[in-house]
Amino acid sequence: MTSLRLCIVGLGLIGGSLALALRRARPAWRLAGVDSDAATRAQALAAGAVDEATELALARLDECDAVVLAVPAPALLELIPEVGARMRPGAVLTDVCGAKEAPCARGAGQQRVIFVGAHPMAGTEFRGFAVADAGLFRGATVAICPPTAGPDAGRAVELVGEVWRAAGAAKLLHVGPQEHDRAVTYASHLPYLAAAAVVRSLRSAGSAEELARDLAAGGFRDTTRLAGDGTVGGAASLNRFLPKAARELAEALQALAAQLEREPDAAREILSATADERRAMKLPPKRPA
Amino acid sequence: MTSLRLCIVGLGLIGGSLALALRRARPAWRLAGVDSDAATRAQALAAGAVDEATELALARLDECDAVVLAVPAPALLELIPEVGARMRPGAVLTDVCGAKEAPCARGAGQQRVIFVGAHPMAGTEFRGFAVADAGLFRGATVAICPPTAGPDAGRAVELVGEVWRAAGAAKLLHVGPQEHDRAVTYASHLPYLAAAAVVRSLRSAGSAEELARDLAAGGFRDTTRLAGDGTVGGAASLNRFLPKAARELAEALQALAAQLEREPDAAREILSATADERRAMKLPPKRPA
Repeated sequence: MTSLRLCIVGLGLIGGSLALALRRARPAWRLAGVDSDAATRAQALAAGAVDEATELALARLDECDAVVLAVPAPALLELIPEVGARMRPGAVLTDVCGAKEAPCARGAGQQRVIFVGAHPMAGTEFRGFAVADAGLFRGATVAICPPTAGPDAGRAVELVGEVWRAAGAAKLLHVGPQEHDRAVTYASHLPYLAAAAVVRSLRSAGSAEELARDLAAGGFRDTTRLAGDGTVGGAASLNRFLPKAARELAEALQALAAQLEREPDAAREILSATADERRAMKLPPKRPA
Repeated sequence: MTSLRLCIVGLGLIGGSLALALRRARPAWRLAGVDSDAATRAQALAAGAVDEATELALARLDECDAVVLAVPAPALLELIPEVGARMRPGAVLTDVCGAKEAPCARGAGQQRVIFVGAHPMAGTEFRGFAVADAGLFRGATVAICPPTAGPDAGRAVELVGEVWRAAGAAKLLHVGPQEHDRAVTYASHLPYLAAAAVVRSLRSAGSAEELARDLAAGGFRDTTRLAGDGTVGGAASLNRFLPKAARELAEALQALAAQLEREPDAAREILSATADERRAMKLPPKRPA
């Protein structure tokens, strides 16, 4: 695609990184940025990430071929109809949210623009344009939820795929929103919730809390890193499969606790087999810092 | 300490790294290595990590000033009296186990040698001498549990501290075994158990399991890294505070699940505050790969 007029709403880590990546890979595209924070807009302009940066109220959304909503989860649901109503009919609206059922349902609830849900599997625990990185999506997998109907659905899915390929994505997975949310429950939201619960558990340490904080090393750091990514919490709260999965995880922990007390040898065998299984898993390598 | 005769029993990641670090920092010390695996002994000798390497039965333990037991947790408890009985009276026996109450009780149950429990807060999910690293303990914190009585306790604690300072430790924390185990529950064993439960939860994904594995990215990788460290499981199984903490974590997950369903705004606020708290925590940086 040689020419595209794109607006990115939300110039935080994800939106800012997308702008930087596209600016580098597709210099001919016209990139508009929207952010409610004036300092963020100034940073993005100074970095050359976008051609213009405005508040949402002033953005010329009707001149865009596509708009990417890169805002936290609760605000996203309100923005989908609001932004869609200001775009030209048949243009493409997409998002980056880690839950897909709720945004895709909201997108399907209007007929003016074509909504294509997307979820790039990338992020860090840091936020804001200051930590945006043109290489954030390099090699990443992006889940894309095609609209269920409409004459221009195929073209819209192509366009969103082209945006993410240009940003560096190595793999585009077309999945239904429900299928996505069920899978991402186990791939991301449940790990996130467990990490958050582990951070909060420090408070249960009572008189040992200070020493526990002193002894916390790499294991604690890595296990809980995801808990520092507040934006995952927003997406997780939109995922209707998460509560049941969290209850099942709680039951698994209770079963492990009972086994550690009553059959420690069997517990050690399970944990040892789990360690082997974890080490055999193919997971993306750490990106260099 | 200009001269020391030290034997390290178990030349895996921890024992092997200790040997390599001491060889470099204290070339005058005499280091003997023990491992049941002939290939491991050959590797350690070839790397110059130890002056000699034998099976345990052939080790001249009575010639050592100190013996470090760097073996997995269940075997450790059997080895403490067995190895102690073969050392010269008054020599120092120490360990590296991540739980301290059980080994220290076993050590206190014999009068021949002075047992000083130690726990270096360092490790990776990989095992064996092949991944041993002279820099593994650089900057690490080591918890040391002084014996409760005995005329030579102070000297023994000094010696064990000297070994870990020589290996690169930046901070030695003298703590009681019970205090240690209570704190390490929250700093390490509970994060470990949560990570293991998250790995096992993938199986609950049912038809979404394959897609979940495809979507698993950095968040899943980091949250579950610790679950790949099988040796933590052995130590965790010796920690009597862990089952109760695991049940409390299960209750916290159930409460979060209920809140996500009934008061999603409140759940998002809690998760956002937890994210802020996690990012504000002072944790050791990642070591360069």
